[in-house]
Amino acid sequence: MKEFRPKSDQYCWTFGGVDPVLRLEAHSILRTWTEDAFSGKITSEKDFPSKVIEPYFTNPQTGPFYVEGAEPGDTLAIHFIRVRPSRNWAVSTTVPLFGSLTTTKYTALLHDALPEKVWMYKVSKEKNSVTFQASDSNFQTDIPMHPFHGTVGVAPAGSEVRSSLVPEAFGGNMDSPEVCEGSTLFLGVNVKGALFSLGDGHYVQGQGEVCGVAVEGAMETEIGIELIKNRYVEWPVIENDDYIMTVGSYRPLEDAFRIAQTQMIKCLASNYGLSIMDAYQLVSQVNETPIANVVDPNYTVVTKVHKKFLPRGHNFMGGAHNNLRKISNDYQNG
Amino acid sequence: MKEFRPKSDQYCWTFGGVDPVLRLEAHSILRTWTEDAFSGKITSEKDFPSKVIEPYFTNPQTGPFYVEGAEPGDTLAIHFIRVRPSRNWAVSTTVPLFGSLTTTKYTALLHDALPEKVWMYKVSKEKNSVTFQASDSNFQTDIPMHPFHGTVGVAPAGSEVRSSLVPEAFGGNMDSPEVCEGSTLFLGVNVKGALFSLGDGHYVQGQGEVCGVAVEGAMETEIGIELIKNRYVEWPVIENDDYIMTVGSYRPLEDAFRIAQTQMIKCLASNYGLSIMDAYQLVSQVNETPIANVVDPNYTVVTKVHKKFLPRGHNFMGGAHNNLRKISNDYQNG
Amino acid sequence: MKEFRPKSDQYCWTFGGVDPVLRLEAHSILRTWTEDAFSGKITSEKDFPSKVIEPYFTNPQTGPFYVEGAEPGDTLAIHFIRVRPSRNWAVSTTVPLFGSLTTTKYTALLHDALPEKVWMYKVSKEKNSVTFQASDSNFQTDIPMHPFHGTVGVAPAGSEVRSSLVPEAFGGNMDSPEVCEGSTLFLGVNVKGALFSLGDGHYVQGQGEVCGVAVEGAMETEIGIELIKNRYVEWPVIENDDYIMTVGSYRPLEDAFRIAQTQMIKCLASNYGLSIMDAYQLVSQVNETPIANVVDPNYTVVTKVHKKFLPRGHNFMGGAHNNLRKISNDYQNG
Amino acid sequence: MKEFRPKSDQYCWTFGGVDPVLRLEAHSILRTWTEDAFSGKITSEKDFPSKVIEPYFTNPQTGPFYVEGAEPGDTLAIHFIRVRPSRNWAVSTTVPLFGSLTTTKYTALLHDALPEKVWMYKVSKEKNSVTFQASDSNFQTDIPMHPFHGTVGVAPAGSEVRSSLVPEAFGGNMDSPEVCEGSTLFLGVNVKGALFSLGDGHYVQGQGEVCGVAVEGAMETEIGIELIKNRYVEWPVIENDDYIMTVGSYRPLEDAFRIAQTQMIKCLASNYGLSIMDAYQLVSQVNETPIANVVDPNYTVVTKVHKKFLPRGHNFMGGAHNNLRKISNDYQNG
Repeated sequence: MKEFRPKSDQYCWTFGGVDPVLRLEAHSILRTWTEDAFSGKITSEKDFPSKVIEPYFTNPQTGPFYVEGAEPGDTLAIHFIRVRPSRNWAVSTTVPLFGSLTTTKYTALLHDALPEKVWMYKVSKEKNSVTFQASDSNFQTDIPMHPFHGTVGVAPAGSEVRSSLVPEAFGGNMDSPEVCEGSTLFLGVNVKGALFSLGDGHYVQGQGEVCGVAVEGAMETEIGIELIKNRYVEWPVIENDDYIMTVGSYRPLEDAFRIAQTQMIKCLASNYGLSIMDAYQLVSQVNETPIANVVDPNYTVVTKVHKKFLPRGHNFMGGAHNNLRKISNDYQNG
Repeated sequence: MKEFRPKSDQYCWTFGGVDPVLRLEAHSILRTWTEDAFSGKITSEKDFPSKVIEPYFTNPQTGPFYVEGAEPGDTLAIHFIRVRPSRNWAVSTTVPLFGSLTTTKYTALLHDALPEKVWMYKVSKEKNSVTFQASDSNFQTDIPMHPFHGTVGVAPAGSEVRSSLVPEAFGGNMDSPEVCEGSTLFLGVNVKGALFSLGDGHYVQGQGEVCGVAVEGAMETEIGIELIKNRYVEWPVIENDDYIMTVGSYRPLEDAFRIAQTQMIKCLASNYGLSIMDAYQLVSQVNETPIANVVDPNYTVVTKVHKKFLPRGHNFMGGAHNNLRKISNDYQNG
Repeated sequence: MKEFRPKSDQYCWTFGGVDPVLRLEAHSILRTWTEDAFSGKITSEKDFPSKVIEPYFTNPQTGPFYVEGAEPGDTLAIHFIRVRPSRNWAVSTTVPLFGSLTTTKYTALLHDALPEKVWMYKVSKEKNSVTFQASDSNFQTDIPMHPFHGTVGVAPAGSEVRSSLVPEAFGGNMDSPEVCEGSTLFLGVNVKGALFSLGDGHYVQGQGEVCGVAVEGAMETEIGIELIKNRYVEWPVIENDDYIMTVGSYRPLEDAFRIAQTQMIKCLASNYGLSIMDAYQLVSQVNETPIANVVDPNYTVVTKVHKKFLPRGHNFMGGAHNNLRKISNDYQNG
Repeated sequence: MKEFRPKSDQYCWTFGGVDPVLRLEAHSILRTWTEDAFSGKITSEKDFPSKVIEPYFTNPQTGPFYVEGAEPGDTLAIHFIRVRPSRNWAVSTTVPLFGSLTTTKYTALLHDALPEKVWMYKVSKEKNSVTFQASDSNFQTDIPMHPFHGTVGVAPAGSEVRSSLVPEAFGGNMDSPEVCEGSTLFLGVNVKGALFSLGDGHYVQGQGEVCGVAVEGAMETEIGIELIKNRYVEWPVIENDDYIMTVGSYRPLEDAFRIAQTQMIKCLASNYGLSIMDAYQLVSQVNETPIANVVDPNYTVVTKVHKKFLPRGHNFMGGAHNNLRKISNDYQNG
């Protein structure tokens, strides 16, 4: 087990283009910590993002980590053993020209930006909830927590370097609640060492991350790492005990949907012995496809198929999820 | 209680433009029956849609029904008391140039159509499931049923007449699994009598109706009807015991998403006393937004907010859902 | 030659669903007149559309005209002999929640509508121009006129009835400047008599009709009509002396683009003896594809290929354009 | 005047992330040469891109060039003095899973790729044309040349590094025919030295670059360089003697359209003293908006407004275009 808690000058803001902060063995465990998307700088309703955050310094990532032996054409498996809020407060905001229901840099209209506002959330670890307090009335309500990492990614292919705000084939800022405790995320390796990083802790988030900002908070995280040699997933794949999931991140939203669906169909065909047309039919009737984000530079959807609908006796991704489950149980049990 | 079982020449194929088959009182109950989307003409793997269905005669609707007293500017509430498969078989297919992962009439590419295939499903009412049988291997799997109407709509505004394949502000072919037993669907009334119709029974369907066809079957349905005078919902709204839901149907998919989200935010602001910005924040953290279809002439998404997150003591849509719940309980208890 | 000038109660507001105002022979000429899109009700900067226009009564159409002998599966050819402004003034406006750079009914965001404004244009027939007068400064500039009909369509297929604001496979509100003097518009016939209508005179319009409103004015129009039996164009086709053009109208904009391009490629393959792949290549290098509108319920693009790049000796659409050219010359010469 | 002709190992394949090959003064002239998008490796119909090109090595760029004194927040002006074919042949192809009318990596459908084909073009400098030779028939036709650079860009903002296939705010693979002799391209500077590069010579290309490949060829190019200090264009701007142009590159296509249009409106408001609403109206009536590409990772459209419609006496971008015109005339005259 290794541990890494970044110092204030150790965050990275891109996938690719940054030297590793630590080298990890495949088949190992890392305990780490991630700052919130605002670098912890928003602590009251008066700390507007446009005032306290410098351009291009949103969404700090912890990493990148170099995985020994990882080479282009392999797949990195990251299992989330533990993903827990490390603070008793969290924050959400609107951000000028960002979000799914406003004029933005890309959906550029003639309107002025919507109002910039900050909502501070109290965190109750006992109740496992955060409290929403309305700013314009005295209504408040508790929302159950579902902590996850909005952002986990490897260095992109083709020597690209992408902002930590971007989700694409390399993972990144997918904002999918499926990247949580108990899940294994598979990412295709594009460079030596894979160079993965993670951040953007969300204590809870609705589908689509509509206003552009979840309930953001720092996170204590433990992950197990595995390497699958000579096999490459083109787009991120997620597995938990119940589901196989595929992730598509692009624009427009129907292209993200199409990527996730075709990846699932091809995945079922190549891993479970179904023909493409049978997989198309089966997926059409049993898939769930939660929208992860409609706010980032690319939009993300996740297609899920419950394993109970799939042929038995197939060892998905070489059994990496089960192996990592076992490693993490061993680790947690001491 | 009235009953209507259409004769073979009594179906309609559009919303609007058709004379009513029956007049109903507001505050009443209807027992009816709907044919499957293929008019019951596909009964084996050899009955290809392109052979047995004439153009413009897909998706027959039962209705339209004239609701006494309904006038433009009102809202019609349809509560689904009972939605049950009326056959022990169902069918799904691919359809040339239709579906979300193929060249279509509108996403027009240079590819030939994908193969046309038919899958027949056995229905077990005891197990409440249908059985998928792969056509290219001997794999089979049971899928729990979740019967709903893919299509329910009123006559459109502005004297338009739309194909029963279209979802839009008037409801129609939304393909949302939320239109099921226990739900109340609210539709703004555009013409005298509202002229609603329904059909397209789905025994089960995955999110997005990916291949364009659910597990299609005839349906026995009982509904309760209520009229909310002088109040108009611009886009369909759904309520069940747990959730408030808003529906957006347009293209591209992000516009369907934007419609559903803004409708929800405005709905919470006008019905629950939240400011727009507080509603934006709350919805961002608690909404679920299942994709209903990415295959029809317009795409549909549904935004859901659980009532437990909302201020108490508000009587949503004048309490129509609870009233209809009561009427249907009274009816079912004799 | 027949003449039809609508009385104030004779306009229609939909394609389909309306009885014909006049019956025309194929191979004949019609002289007619169209009102502007605001029914002539905006005559000063104070006449805001939201005040003077009732919902669903924008864009009055002259017609529909019944063409003798036209049957589903035929193609109607409409040649524009003369399209001339009939007034010495014209008008443009912004319209709340309409336009390509604002929140709309379909691209639904949380912004308030942009300001509603009216610009009156003076028309100089001598200079063949209109004068733009800035409302917030004293700048003015002359813009050369290019008069055309924003809207020409037939009754839709499948018993649909569509608002005169909609462009689709039946033509309609395409807002393409190519529908002007000297052009022949081909529309597939869906109902007996074709039932075409026209309106929405634009004295000039930029590409995309960005703010949603062109320089709108009443029009004196003469057209020649021809019928091509047993041949059906799926989407509108336009021909002038120099160009073959295909029209795609849908959302998102890339789907409109894809429709126009695939129609052109198939058109060149079936009419000019090129293989699909050669047509794909040739179109890729020589096409022009002006954006017609990005504001209507569907967006429209037009793909144009200059005839000089095409094989000789092919009689496009049975030579209908040349025939109509000849008819109109004969007519104009007395 | 400086000259740079890259050696075979000197090309770059990204914007950003590469050391400069040469340092240039602002207010200077560069004579250079660019390879074709296939690195000159396709010289016959049998050289399929999928065989001769390694992944991530399409579209070699000449550069990057370091401009002395360029700092983030400035704008670089590149004037194209001369853009001339340097070969008497050129090439176009289809590329598997690339193009606007095929399933692609992002518009991911279940179809197989379209056929991969190569078309060789003969270049006649005397006739200023290329000859298209059909591969499946003996038709051939001459197409007038319009040589331009499909790709010109600077290092992106936020430490990103992007493939030379990508167009975005930094310019890049815009595939706009307006980037040709006589034009000045303005790009906002994001890093010290600006680090611009160029390539992707197109001897001619239709709108949208439909099949994904223009008539590709090596290019002899001379450019004049100017630096505008302390002024930053957010998206590329182009000027020639007649037009002001703004460029939007994103997905979906309507977002590219919206970017180009809002940039133009804001540009006219800030440079020519019009109010935003007057600029919106004027642009709506006079703009031209050619589609540049619908095939790259982002799509590109260009909005053009003729200077004759604009207020006089304004010195657009400090008169940089006219200055560069003068420099290049002086240079060409000796």
